[in-house]
This record gives sequence, structure tokens and C-alpha cells, in this order.
Amino acid sequence: MTLPSDNDLTTKDLAITDTLQSPEAPTPGEHSHHGYISDKSKYLARLKRIEGQARGIHRMVDEEQYCIDILTQISALTKAIEGVALGLLDDHLKHCVVDAAKLGGDEAQIKIAEASAAIARLVRS
Amino acid sequence: MTLPSDNDLTTKDLAITDTLQSPEAPTPGEHSHHGYISDKSKYLARLKRIEGQARGIHRMVDEEQYCIDILTQISALTKAIEGVALGLLDDHLKHCVVDAAKLGGDEAQIKIAEASAAIARLVRS
Amino acid sequence: MTLPSDNDLTTKDLAITDTLQSPEAPTPGEHSHHGYISDKSKYLARLKRIEGQARGIHRMVDEEQYCIDILTQISALTKAIEGVALGLLDDHLKHCVVDAAKLGGDEAQIKIAEASAAIARLVRS
Amino acid sequence: MTLPSDNDLTTKDLAITDTLQSPEAPTPGEHSHHGYISDKSKYLARLKRIEGQARGIHRMVDEEQYCIDILTQISALTKAIEGVALGLLDDHLKHCVVDAAKLGGDEAQIKIAEASAAIARLVRS
Repeated sequence: MTLPSDNDLTTKDLAITDTLQSPEAPTPGEHSHHGYISDKSKYLARLKRIEGQARGIHRMVDEEQYCIDILTQISALTKAIEGVALGLLDDHLKHCVVDAAKLGGDEAQIKIAEASAAIARLVRS
Repeated sequence: MTLPSDNDLTTKDLAITDTLQSPEAPTPGEHSHHGYISDKSKYLARLKRIEGQARGIHRMVDEEQYCIDILTQISALTKAIEGVALGLLDDHLKHCVVDAAKLGGDEAQIKIAEASAAIARLVRS
Repeated sequence: MTLPSDNDLTTKDLAITDTLQSPEAPTPGEHSHHGYISDKSKYLARLKRIEGQARGIHRMVDEEQYCIDILTQISALTKAIEGVALGLLDDHLKHCVVDAAKLGGDEAQIKIAEASAAIARLVRS
Repeated sequence: MTLPSDNDLTTKDLAITDTLQSPEAPTPGEHSHHGYISDKSKYLARLKRIEGQARGIHRMVDEEQYCIDILTQISALTKAIEGVALGLLDDHLKHCVVDAAKLGGDEAQIKIAEASAAIARLVRS
């Protein structure tokens, strides 16, 4: 079986964000304009761990371990990624939304509409 | 930062399943006694893809991409892993639970109780 | 404001179940062919309480109480109805599905497919 | 069976909000200081309908209708109450949170923390 490479994934899964990046997108070191993440290294460690959980579940299926045990691990992964999402959302409200509200104008309402749509996706997924 | 190795993960995250394996656990090639998975290669491909999604989200946080875009990718990952869980659960009901019910005795009730607990974890996570 | 009457509700919300009832549907006293519910009076009490929770939330909105407090009550109602759903599903697996599996034939697979679809709706809602 | 009266429910289910009300709580007509709800009559109609859905599910259990059909109605109720929650939350962010952010000071951070906690309860329920 040919597994999807990391590059394939970028092109397909991350299409939404890719289209948002202009051709002159900043190099990684310059991305600090979205520096709203309160404790980046904490998130990176949690996401690295979640990637490991996904790899562990893949191995359990490959080894045909007991289905209920696999489901237990899937629930753990789901809770972990949900925790990351709630943390990022809190950071976003604290920084982006509050900053936009202070500036006034339509920007705050646009940020709130975006945040509400993201919350709806989380609640429904 | 020292990232958790795959082995660390096994010891910690997969503790529940590890304790279920006897010292004489079969080698991978012999795991076929849980051969209830209807289309294993399909699950493996989906899980490989989910692992890639987790890696993509890690990179987005590392590059401090826009929070709402990261949340969109997290919702996509959550839906994908949920789909795997629902598929595995369906397979489990179709094979393990039905087989236990045919045999009669307490085994079917034990299998149902296990399945119900797994469903509750999925619904609440 | 004209509120929907209980009869309106039956016609609209419960359309799915109504269409499943034959013209010769049994009178309430004869409904015992689905006697799979392990402790009916417990469910009825919980559902009566949930109806009261919905009424309480309606009053909170009418009195324009603090939004966060209303959301807290909505989460409590959601958890309560989820608990009823998980209980009913467990009863269903224990009785209908196990009985169908014992009989053999296609009936068990039909029951499992129905149950899996119901589980998917619960997980995604 | 003695059903819980509406008053019993207030005392028990709504304890959280009751304790937030000072003894000099305004009479219903004066509650307008939380006038953040964008279309109150729309919410009241939806909640009245949800109350009717709960009553319909109670009747289905009482008549021992088919379990899967009851679960379908429960999923519909869950989606409906979720929709109310997402609407109220959006109104809350648009009004209370934005207003607090404009005023500056700690108030905005307190409002965000409250909102994030409410979002976490919704995502996890």
C-alpha cells in the first residue's frame, strides 16, 4: 500500500489554509503576527503526543487488537485534541477578539462571527 | 524539547491494552483471533491520514498560523477519527456481539455491556 | 404568540415514527411488543424532569437571565437527555439485538445496521 | 408516581442561577439589563418546541414505541437545544464580551474566561 506522504496531506487536507496564504507568505520565522498562542511549546508537546496516539491506534488495528480497546484509545485521542481546540479558542478570544473589540468598527463583529462558526463546528463534531 | 518516543507512548497511553495482553501474547502474524475488522486496509489508510492531519496541525501551530484555520483542521481530524470509531463499533456489533449472542450464556451480556460503555465514551467525548 | 400545540408537534416532529405505525396500530395498552425497556418508570421520571428543564430554560430566556447561566442549564439538559439515549440504546442492544442474533438470518444484521445508524446520530449530535 | 412540580425543579435544577440572584433581584419586568438576546421571541418559540419534543419522547417511552425511533427523536431534540446554545453564545460574544473589551480592564478577561468555560461544557456534553 502506498501511504499518503506528508506533502500529499498538505495539498489535500490543509487546502483551506493554503488558499489563505498569499504567494508572499512570510517564512516561518516571520509568522509572529499571529503571536496569540499563550504557551506554544505546551501545544506543540500535546500535538506531538496526539500524533503518537494516532500512530498507536494504527498499530493496534494492524495487530488486530481487541476492538473495544481500540475504541478506548480513540476516545482518549478525541479528548486530547478537543482540549487543544478549547485552549486555542480561549487564546483566540482573549487576544484577537478582545483586540478587535478595542479597535471598534466591523472588525470585532467579523472576528466574533468567525469564532462562533468555529465553536459550532467543534460542538457538532 | 525532547519529544515522547513511540515507546514512551505505548507505556503510558496504551497501558489499558497492554495489561490485557498476556506474557504469551501472540506475535503480530497470529493476531487473527480478533479478525472482525471488515476492511483492515481501509482503516489503516484512514488512520495513516489522521496521523498526517495531526502532524499538519502541529506544523500550523509551530508556524503560528491563524487560530481559526487551525480549529478548522482540528474539527476535520475529529470527524475523521469519529468515523473510524463508528466503523469499528459497527464491525464489533456485527461480529463479536452477534457471535456471542448465538452462543448464548453470559458472554453476550458482557459484550453488550462493554459495547455500551464504549458508546458512552464516544458520545461524551 | 401562538404556541405549537401538542397535536401540532405530533404531526410534525414525530412524523418518522407515525409513518411506521400501521393503520391498525395497537392502542396504548397493547404496546407491550416492544417491552424491552428495563425500567420504564425510571425513564418516564427522567423525561418528565427533562421537560421541566426545558421549561426552566424557556423561563430564563423570557426573564433575560444571564446568558452564561442559561448555557449552564442547557448543558445539564443535554447531558440528561444523552443519559436517557445511552440507557435506551443499552436496553435495545441487550434485548432486541441479542434476540435477533439468536434467531439468526438477516434480522440480526438489520438490527445492527439500525443501531449503528442511531449511534452515529448520537455521536454526531 | 408523583411528578416533580415546576417549583421543585426550580429549587433543584436551577440552583446555580438562583444563588447568583441577590435577595433584591429585580422583578421579571426589570430584567432588561441582560438585553443581549438578539431575537427573544425566536428563542422562546424554539424552546417551547423543544419542551414539546421532550413531552413527545416521554409519550413514546410510555407507549413503548420502537427504541430506534425514540433515539431518532432524542437526536433531533439534542440538535435543537444545541442550536439554541450556539445562538445564545454568539449573542453573548457579540454584546457582553465586546462591550467588556471596549471598557478595558479585567472585566473583558473575566467574561472571556466565563465564555470559554461555557464553550468547554457544550463541546463536552
